[in-house]
Amino acid sequence: MTDRACASASPAAEALGAALHALVAELFPICRSITGDGVRRSLAILSRHLPLDIHEVPSGTQVFDWTVPREWRIRDAFIEDALGRRVLSLRDSTLHVVSYSGPVDAVLPLHELRRHIHTLPDQPGLIPYRTSYYAENWGFCMSHDALEALPEGAYHARIDSELVDGSLTYGEHLHIGATEEEVLLSAHSCHPSLANDNCSGMAVLARLAERMAGRRTRFSYRFLFAPGTIGAITWLARNRERTDRIRHGLVIAGVGDCGAPTYKRSRRGDAGIDVAMAHVLRHLAPDAQVRDFSPYGYDERQYCSPGFDLPVGMLQRSPFGEFPEYHTSADNLDFVRPEMLAHSLELIEAAIEVIEKDRCLRNALPFCEPQLGRRGLYGALGGDANAAKRNLAMLWLLNQSDGSRSLLDIADRARLPFGTIAATAEVLEREGLLVPA
Amino acid sequence: MTDRACASASPAAEALGAALHALVAELFPICRSITGDGVRRSLAILSRHLPLDIHEVPSGTQVFDWTVPREWRIRDAFIEDALGRRVLSLRDSTLHVVSYSGPVDAVLPLHELRRHIHTLPDQPGLIPYRTSYYAENWGFCMSHDALEALPEGAYHARIDSELVDGSLTYGEHLHIGATEEEVLLSAHSCHPSLANDNCSGMAVLARLAERMAGRRTRFSYRFLFAPGTIGAITWLARNRERTDRIRHGLVIAGVGDCGAPTYKRSRRGDAGIDVAMAHVLRHLAPDAQVRDFSPYGYDERQYCSPGFDLPVGMLQRSPFGEFPEYHTSADNLDFVRPEMLAHSLELIEAAIEVIEKDRCLRNALPFCEPQLGRRGLYGALGGDANAAKRNLAMLWLLNQSDGSRSLLDIADRARLPFGTIAATAEVLEREGLLVPA
Amino acid sequence: MTDRACASASPAAEALGAALHALVAELFPICRSITGDGVRRSLAILSRHLPLDIHEVPSGTQVFDWTVPREWRIRDAFIEDALGRRVLSLRDSTLHVVSYSGPVDAVLPLHELRRHIHTLPDQPGLIPYRTSYYAENWGFCMSHDALEALPEGAYHARIDSELVDGSLTYGEHLHIGATEEEVLLSAHSCHPSLANDNCSGMAVLARLAERMAGRRTRFSYRFLFAPGTIGAITWLARNRERTDRIRHGLVIAGVGDCGAPTYKRSRRGDAGIDVAMAHVLRHLAPDAQVRDFSPYGYDERQYCSPGFDLPVGMLQRSPFGEFPEYHTSADNLDFVRPEMLAHSLELIEAAIEVIEKDRCLRNALPFCEPQLGRRGLYGALGGDANAAKRNLAMLWLLNQSDGSRSLLDIADRARLPFGTIAATAEVLEREGLLVPA
Repeated sequence: MTDRACASASPAAEALGAALHALVAELFPICRSITGDGVRRSLAILSRHLPLDIHEVPSGTQVFDWTVPREWRIRDAFIEDALGRRVLSLRDSTLHVVSYSGPVDAVLPLHELRRHIHTLPDQPGLIPYRTSYYAENWGFCMSHDALEALPEGAYHARIDSELVDGSLTYGEHLHIGATEEEVLLSAHSCHPSLANDNCSGMAVLARLAERMAGRRTRFSYRFLFAPGTIGAITWLARNRERTDRIRHGLVIAGVGDCGAPTYKRSRRGDAGIDVAMAHVLRHLAPDAQVRDFSPYGYDERQYCSPGFDLPVGMLQRSPFGEFPEYHTSADNLDFVRPEMLAHSLELIEAAIEVIEKDRCLRNALPFCEPQLGRRGLYGALGGDANAAKRNLAMLWLLNQSDGSRSLLDIADRARLPFGTIAATAEVLEREGLLVPA
Repeated sequence: MTDRACASASPAAEALGAALHALVAELFPICRSITGDGVRRSLAILSRHLPLDIHEVPSGTQVFDWTVPREWRIRDAFIEDALGRRVLSLRDSTLHVVSYSGPVDAVLPLHELRRHIHTLPDQPGLIPYRTSYYAENWGFCMSHDALEALPEGAYHARIDSELVDGSLTYGEHLHIGATEEEVLLSAHSCHPSLANDNCSGMAVLARLAERMAGRRTRFSYRFLFAPGTIGAITWLARNRERTDRIRHGLVIAGVGDCGAPTYKRSRRGDAGIDVAMAHVLRHLAPDAQVRDFSPYGYDERQYCSPGFDLPVGMLQRSPFGEFPEYHTSADNLDFVRPEMLAHSLELIEAAIEVIEKDRCLRNALPFCEPQLGRRGLYGALGGDANAAKRNLAMLWLLNQSDGSRSLLDIADRARLPFGTIAATAEVLEREGLLVPA
Repeated sequence: MTDRACASASPAAEALGAALHALVAELFPICRSITGDGVRRSLAILSRHLPLDIHEVPSGTQVFDWTVPREWRIRDAFIEDALGRRVLSLRDSTLHVVSYSGPVDAVLPLHELRRHIHTLPDQPGLIPYRTSYYAENWGFCMSHDALEALPEGAYHARIDSELVDGSLTYGEHLHIGATEEEVLLSAHSCHPSLANDNCSGMAVLARLAERMAGRRTRFSYRFLFAPGTIGAITWLARNRERTDRIRHGLVIAGVGDCGAPTYKRSRRGDAGIDVAMAHVLRHLAPDAQVRDFSPYGYDERQYCSPGFDLPVGMLQRSPFGEFPEYHTSADNLDFVRPEMLAHSLELIEAAIEVIEKDRCLRNALPFCEPQLGRRGLYGALGGDANAAKRNLAMLWLLNQSDGSRSLLDIADRARLPFGTIAATAEVLEREGLLVPA
């Protein structure tokens, strides 16, 4: 994927891409973890784009089989050589400290220090991302090259952190639509300086909410920014009785790299969002992959656990774990491209358009074709160059609208874009030829 | 398709092909439209082959969302130059006048006349076929080369036509079978001198009816020759209560060119005729295409409208609109080949054999295989060279005939021709091994 | 297939292969037919490995549409030339006499004798295998080369056989499991000196029974060694009321050659054994073929007749009738390989493991994932190198175990070996995370 040239975006999308990339860049340096001030500072930045309800859930709260952990507070982390020169500093990269590392303040010989240092020998120039949630430990991450360059001797290892009773923080925003039926849009907010995973997801969702502000929608849209796994579990535990309102959902993560989009189906496999995303990708991103559900991944793991089995899929670009930059310092601000962020946002908006407008209609004159010419409908639809496609869309809609097939079903059967079918359906509704099923 | 060499037909089919081509040639020169004497003269020719009921439906009759239009009467059409030389004449080709053109009798400069002349700049040697149904207009069609060769100057344009209250004409023949369940065979009869579209369809259906005359059949067979769209709509409007008798149906059009057969499934997609035609083509025309239903096409558009949803498919050879001769003067008597006409007729007869003979039987001795050797059934079936195939057919029939699978289902599962299965079934019925389900 | 190099077996399987081949070699020389002492002697050999109930069913017994035939007793068969030199002798190969041949003792000129001699002109070095069940006849089989080498002259043809009222013999063994639900394992026992067809099947099943002796199983396992067709029919006729106990079944034949395994599905096509065998072959023999049911074959013809429609598939290696050694003297002890016999036995045992262990479980904590790390389950499963696969298996099991999917369904969806899923399920059951559905 690093070898893949990025497609050039349309000029129209450039401003959007630039704004998204700027937001990613603002989120990037913060040292996030599953709890702590990193998450709070990130949510504060996002709040400038959408009104966020910030929830603080105390450490020790029971959430299903889990307990909200103690809060991690990290102030500094470094390694100094015998001359007091810093050979590693948290200020250079938030990846340098193992996430949730306990404190240390000790002078050790290199061979002992090594046991607490994680590197990537096969990618010697990159710093890995490591965590030690739910385990008492301390550690650093650095590039293998930098480690190998260290001379023998004594080093001062210092991690100024503490694990204390505090809270887990997540942010939530509800765009209120005409009905209480909800669409869940969820991004994890717990990774430190990884631009794609998941500053990209947070930025895209925040910007999406901003673009939807004031728009009248059929569904209500719930935007959730929560730490991975424990955050989604906490939200589900606190909203267990309300999950049956969720009609569609998407987990968004890693949507800024140059790879083709990858959609992972919900556990159900044939949920509305699965059909809608497959349709959108077929027409807008023909190189996209659609994959079957698997229980390994992001927070769709929780939303699609068998007790909930929510209709929630996952959108990413290059599949996590399958590209070399994944969970390394190479997942940086260069790895994430403005035009890809904009493209991902457009795909989500296209899917939203589909689920918003999809409905079942019925042909009011089902015996033989109605005489379209007499009504001025042939070739006269807006006078555009797509008249032939619109004519075909009319025939498909009239033929298939027997109450059992939705507009999306018809678009798929006709191999026409949903937008063409939906716009044509509106014309036929105005003429009274299609009526609610 | 024009570059495709025609397959040589079997000698046996040659006489049939010649007779079919002669009938196409007789129908070809007539100036048909959706109403008028062209249709009447064509039906008169067909009546020599099958007893036709001729129906005249008055202009102004309401048929569903449509109204039977005024009748078009065309007597002559020409363009003369200033010296009185005819540069275009209806007598040379019925395509020269736009079908349903209103009258004109005027002298115009070439640049004004051009606005009423249709040509094909990309196929400059061919005359296009154009219509202006349901719109007041007049016009000519000619080859682009001929138009370009005209010198500037004044021309006398004359179309001696009128649109008057009259009637729409269609012809119908019912071959009466053992039951009132019907098979609908329908060809459009409204195109002027286009040999494939649809003189071929009319000729093949007329000849088929002639060959079936006197044959005892299980189904009744309704042959319909009607103008496209408005004819089928008119027939459906007048027979609305009787359409539930229709068990199978085929629209026949463009069955004389050298292209491989193309079958378009009914809207249902899995109707008996869909399974039967797919079987027949798999075994008799392996290069054939089977396509899913779409609402654009010939009169299956009306038969498969959602209020009727009849089990009617469409058989053609090269798909309409996808070959260069379509709707041009190149769709002439050379474009239609005797052996292809005969082949198409044979395919329809093969499908009829399938639907006539298909039925569900039950193995009377379903516990273990019956002892076929004792009954002299192994290898003894007619003593023919196909004994191995017949033996296999016996085993398939005995194994699968549990009342839930028809002979056609079994033939498809066994990958054997329906004829082999049906002939073998008769042998096993005579032996009492298979009984009605 | 003769050109295909045999894969080398694992050392562990070598002893098993050698033992199986020795058993094949012991069975090979016996002159078996559908009745008679050949079958009895073969069953006596097998009885040393598993306790066999020997059934004798009198000639003339009616079994469904069939009658148990007279018993064939063969003592000797030879052809001598005028000088008394034996040019063919039953003692050299049991294939030399047509099975069920009536007696003869006559001197004939070569051209008359030829009418009673079967050869394979296209495989001139091989003796064919021929039978004349249910027909009065006599005959010899020999290689075409040997026949062609015979000088003209008179020959003494002698077949010392008789067809007498006696009985049909089959052997049966029931491995008793925890339930009365049965697995039927069936091999035909009627072919003479054909090593693959079916000494291999008899040997593999006998040895399988021996290995299962004393093992506690959920199902009861019925081992059946019976002459082809008439034996299976006889068994079914005598056990008609008990066949509804059969939950799974396999016909085993031709399992010693070097070809890839071939599994033929039951008539149902989606029986448990069909899913289990497809799974086993996908993981253990990726070059295996899985074919749809057809009514031509071994005794699955009877088990899958529509009155029974038992869930019985068939396992062989190279498909019968599709390799040159089939039903010739080349199907000898060299054609059957120890490692292939062992491999086939392992495949059957793997399928048995699947059907024994397959079951539906239910996630006891279905809302979100349970916290596996807290229970020491992550990466800690036995400490083996397959930790990642086990972790994935845990996630799949927890996500999919909603009571509607069995372990095998989950293994197939996860594309993991059943063994991994089953072993992981046991761990999760011990933890109380999975419970009976």
